[in-house]
Amino acid sequence: MVRASPYLPETALRRAMTMTLLLCAAALPALAAEGMWTLDNLPTAALRQRYGFAPDAAWVDKVMQASVRLAGGCSGSFVSAEGLVMTNHHCAAPCIDQLSSAQVDRSAAGFLARTRDEELRCPEIELNRLEQIVDVTDRVRQATAGRDGTAFQAALDAVRADLTRACKKDDAATRCDLVTLYHGGQYRLYRYHRFDDVRLVWAPESDIANFGGDPDNFNFPRYDLDVSMLRAYEHGRPAVVRDFLRLKPAGAQPGELTFVLGHPGHTDRQLTVAQLETLRDRLAVETLPRGSELRGLLIQYGRGGAEPLRTSLNDLFYLENSVKVWRGQLQALSEPSFWAARREAEQRLVAFVASRPELKAQVGDPWSAIAVAQQRARELWRPYRLLSRGDAFATSYFRYARLLVRGAAERAKPDAERLREFAEAGLPEQEQLLASSAPVYPALEAAKLGWSLSKLREGLGADDALVRRVLGKEAPDALAARWVTATRLGEPAERMRLWRGGQAAIDASNDPFIRLAIEVDAASREIRSRYESEVEAVEQKNSERIAAASFAQTGTGAYPDATFTLRLSYGEVRGWNERGMPVPPYTEVAGVFARATGADPFRLPPSWLAAEPRLDPRQRFNFVTTNDIIGGNSGSPMIDRHADIVGLVFDGNLASLGGSYAYDESVNRAVAVHPGVLVEALRKVYDAGFLADELLGRPAR
Amino acid sequence: MVRASPYLPETALRRAMTMTLLLCAAALPALAAEGMWTLDNLPTAALRQRYGFAPDAAWVDKVMQASVRLAGGCSGSFVSAEGLVMTNHHCAAPCIDQLSSAQVDRSAAGFLARTRDEELRCPEIELNRLEQIVDVTDRVRQATAGRDGTAFQAALDAVRADLTRACKKDDAATRCDLVTLYHGGQYRLYRYHRFDDVRLVWAPESDIANFGGDPDNFNFPRYDLDVSMLRAYEHGRPAVVRDFLRLKPAGAQPGELTFVLGHPGHTDRQLTVAQLETLRDRLAVETLPRGSELRGLLIQYGRGGAEPLRTSLNDLFYLENSVKVWRGQLQALSEPSFWAARREAEQRLVAFVASRPELKAQVGDPWSAIAVAQQRARELWRPYRLLSRGDAFATSYFRYARLLVRGAAERAKPDAERLREFAEAGLPEQEQLLASSAPVYPALEAAKLGWSLSKLREGLGADDALVRRVLGKEAPDALAARWVTATRLGEPAERMRLWRGGQAAIDASNDPFIRLAIEVDAASREIRSRYESEVEAVEQKNSERIAAASFAQTGTGAYPDATFTLRLSYGEVRGWNERGMPVPPYTEVAGVFARATGADPFRLPPSWLAAEPRLDPRQRFNFVTTNDIIGGNSGSPMIDRHADIVGLVFDGNLASLGGSYAYDESVNRAVAVHPGVLVEALRKVYDAGFLADELLGRPAR
Repeated sequence: MVRASPYLPETALRRAMTMTLLLCAAALPALAAEGMWTLDNLPTAALRQRYGFAPDAAWVDKVMQASVRLAGGCSGSFVSAEGLVMTNHHCAAPCIDQLSSAQVDRSAAGFLARTRDEELRCPEIELNRLEQIVDVTDRVRQATAGRDGTAFQAALDAVRADLTRACKKDDAATRCDLVTLYHGGQYRLYRYHRFDDVRLVWAPESDIANFGGDPDNFNFPRYDLDVSMLRAYEHGRPAVVRDFLRLKPAGAQPGELTFVLGHPGHTDRQLTVAQLETLRDRLAVETLPRGSELRGLLIQYGRGGAEPLRTSLNDLFYLENSVKVWRGQLQALSEPSFWAARREAEQRLVAFVASRPELKAQVGDPWSAIAVAQQRARELWRPYRLLSRGDAFATSYFRYARLLVRGAAERAKPDAERLREFAEAGLPEQEQLLASSAPVYPALEAAKLGWSLSKLREGLGADDALVRRVLGKEAPDALAARWVTATRLGEPAERMRLWRGGQAAIDASNDPFIRLAIEVDAASREIRSRYESEVEAVEQKNSERIAAASFAQTGTGAYPDATFTLRLSYGEVRGWNERGMPVPPYTEVAGVFARATGADPFRLPPSWLAAEPRLDPRQRFNFVTTNDIIGGNSGSPMIDRHADIVGLVFDGNLASLGGSYAYDESVNRAVAVHPGVLVEALRKVYDAGFLADELLGRPAR
Repeated sequence: MVRASPYLPETALRRAMTMTLLLCAAALPALAAEGMWTLDNLPTAALRQRYGFAPDAAWVDKVMQASVRLAGGCSGSFVSAEGLVMTNHHCAAPCIDQLSSAQVDRSAAGFLARTRDEELRCPEIELNRLEQIVDVTDRVRQATAGRDGTAFQAALDAVRADLTRACKKDDAATRCDLVTLYHGGQYRLYRYHRFDDVRLVWAPESDIANFGGDPDNFNFPRYDLDVSMLRAYEHGRPAVVRDFLRLKPAGAQPGELTFVLGHPGHTDRQLTVAQLETLRDRLAVETLPRGSELRGLLIQYGRGGAEPLRTSLNDLFYLENSVKVWRGQLQALSEPSFWAARREAEQRLVAFVASRPELKAQVGDPWSAIAVAQQRARELWRPYRLLSRGDAFATSYFRYARLLVRGAAERAKPDAERLREFAEAGLPEQEQLLASSAPVYPALEAAKLGWSLSKLREGLGADDALVRRVLGKEAPDALAARWVTATRLGEPAERMRLWRGGQAAIDASNDPFIRLAIEVDAASREIRSRYESEVEAVEQKNSERIAAASFAQTGTGAYPDATFTLRLSYGEVRGWNERGMPVPPYTEVAGVFARATGADPFRLPPSWLAAEPRLDPRQRFNFVTTNDIIGGNSGSPMIDRHADIVGLVFDGNLASLGGSYAYDESVNRAVAVHPGVLVEALRKVYDAGFLADELLGRPAR
């Protein structure tokens, strides 16, 4: 599944998402379907030449207003005038899970609201609809001019706070993000309409939404009804939307032009060779081993009984997806030919700059500066990851506690001096998280926390002063059990009391996680500040110079690396060749029955087994296109030239995992749900014809 | 801990052990303590120059006869005339564990035999004492001349069977191994005296043997009494040995010359750059993630209660050691300076060959041939690992079943045509394993097997024909539970019945693991044959040529990569600098009491807490030297110029993990138990003065 991973506020969208272009552009064949284009800079010439069609301004405006972002890391679209939103089941899964209990398991059983009243509010889902993009490059440049390291970072945070506050204007339904394009080459202010009342309308059973489970994830042929319906509400009523997309049940035909309209999370196609080496080694030594170990732990945890299984399944589901992505990325970064191509392209650019004195004077040697920062990145990463990203304290209780402890301290400061996630404009999101009614399962939290505390000791060493302060003389598991028993941070009311009580409430709290968050706060802030100023600020400042050199070299427009902002990619329905064998582009309904074994994860839900005689076995089920996508595109509508929905993106093939670093039209594929199978299932499996009617724009029930 | 890992017979000693010299030799400072030298080729000139001493023939003969190898992956030495053997606690741990039960936990409680009658036979420990080394290079060359790939491999296996059978002469107490030095540059026949009746005499509690556990493993300062005493028996009586080493309780002084006499398992210092890249990527993508996942699973399994914890602890202990080794290796392979040095050295050698037409004609271009084989290695590794090495079937039941199924088929063939582990000369080891009374824990086996079957599906894909045959329509966990319930291969009598019954007994068996081993046998043999002929045979044949080129280039003697055969390394007692701070070379008894927290793994056993007032707080505990060691050296005696024991090697520091690929005298350190603390503990903690007396050569009880 191609969902971006959610993390702590300070690190949102940095992890699990990893791509590259500018440096490669010269080496690519003309007219490849490569690119995740911003809507204000589409490759219209290439499109016209290849497909005889390019979107006009009205088309662009409509699809922009019809698309939504799920702030947690997914994409979606409005599909009716009454605020109905289509996304993937795996994007709505946290909500479905949070609305479940030991008694009512809506993940396993599925869910259908037959009336508006039955629609259930999701505790944490936030939808963003893009309304406006403003170029603020000059403003940011002025603010950061002449600054380095910590000063650069502080100036950037301050101008971000100013810009977003001014943009938001105390309107809780507005969200404004400062977006860095080309790793610092350009800055944009994105204004979104924000929906925080989002309700679950329909979700199929996880057995069909995620048929094939982890073994089939990132594979094709495929048979997943990975769809879910939400509805945006405003003022307690379904939101009235002007622009929405209509389903075309016939879908797209082989070779037909398809657009993917969505929010790719993060790519690393524009990094230097030294940065890529850092990523490779980090994946190998830190990220993948840690994720794999936690995966094994969760597998065994889930074997402990029905409730341990139910409560841990969602964690395992996302983690296994990440592990597969990381391994795919590492495999892409293990290809000697990849490195040869990247080294050559970089050397070509360096030589190009060297050959032009004026350019050389402007650009200098950003590659060396970035290479030096990589050494710092390698030294600082482990403590940064453990303390600042919170890997050492892998429990929701700590995430809440840090938010509360820092929230109290930061809100007391002027807006421009706060940690960026506490800037005034972003507080509504933090409050929504704290007020969430999502259940917290103490036994699972204790199991993850005890383990992660032992990883803190493993990572920094048993003799590290902070490790000794945190662990004292207790074993990590014993400590975790004691804290989890004592905390009240699982209760939303207690969290909101502490949030509203500010610093006084924090000071008076004896909650073990509040005390822990205070205990580690100074060290965590320090390592974050060092990482941001000694690594990220250096990379950003110098990437801007490389972007300038690259632009001078290619002389053409190019798309920026993905930033979890709205992009349009183009492509077409097409299979590919795997080890010399052709992989056809479509699967059909008959195939899922042939593949079912009765055992998880190849087990069909009773509803499908019962409906088999009624279903058209030749109905197309899933299909692949050449669209260039990445994690975060999950839930993206796939649309044709008329802006009708011909698919719902939910995955890529294995080769697409290397898409973090490069796109190869011969093998990279996006995987989508066919609109026909959705209508077929709504009508014949779920007796939800009224929902199909709403999707098809027919008279409402 | 620096123990070599035991695996399936066919892969014994290949995994977890990973070093290099010939190519580096020119770049190293003269007289570095580098090198794991064979006893017939010691660096006597360097030793004399640096220390004014070099061993003579009598010295060498004595220490050779006094040293033993634990066939499972460790080293040891005879320490009395009555067959007493000193090794590490962690080397005897499998025996201690196998002699334990839910009622009597000898790992936790420790063990002391106060009379010979109380000494307990270890189910699986085999000791080898080296008696003779014969150069058989010419004989092997003749047999393999002009052959490639499969033919090369078959000829090598055949000549191995002939040589070892002739050497062994039907003597069950003799073991003969064909040893490949310099990756094919030379061949030796090693004849050992084999002891299969080995009894446990003394083991301290695991809490003091392994004080600090995984957090302190490969770290220093350190406080581990990682010692155990075994005794070799022959004909039911303690073996009478002529050569043994005597303990010197005062140990060695700072700067004093120390030798390590032991069996380093495997190093990769002589590999090409292409081979090292393969190793790096394999560690990153396959080995470390798999090991980490199993680690997490075992951690959570052990949280399931006292008996799950007890029965899984030994597995976790070895696995965590391996994971730390792999991560240390990967980190060494992530150093840009390492790669720059290796590339330069290789290019220098290539240029040297190119500049000498005669040499060029003899050597050709082995680097390219090896690079091509790396592509095959990358393609074949995963199925090879899963099927041939048995990663897909991670249970003792399958290991027994494969041994039985293949044993029946192979023993029916002429010796020279068998899979090498079934050559006549090696059958006694296989029979000892099958007859072992070591307990098998069904619940643990089912947990590991269910998981590993899911890894088979993940690794080869759900659509692989063999995966479909093995799993059928069942979930991996369900299949594992069913098989584990039905099998009788946990009983030694049943295993011996099947072994003695030959093919007829195998054909008649309905044991699920026998059926499984038969089901996957053809595919497993095929992938093994391909990996050996397309990768290993190519590497071995071409490494021989590189060795010749290197010898011509350096013109000097050099030590071969480690091969789990007897080596001597030299060095001295010396601390090092860690991040600018000096690490002193010794720890003292007072330090362990200061470090103890009461919580695992920093918990002292009651015996030590009670003995504290009696112990000399200044007694040296552990110490470090510059000796060049690697996994397999665990249990090696550290001796002075008089061949008296001044230490017992049990570990290296973190930097030593890079020793797989290169040795750096400024940071690589061996970690040893001081002989003084051993005597102190035997007398004052364990009331085992009689054992201290035996070690010190005083009158027997």
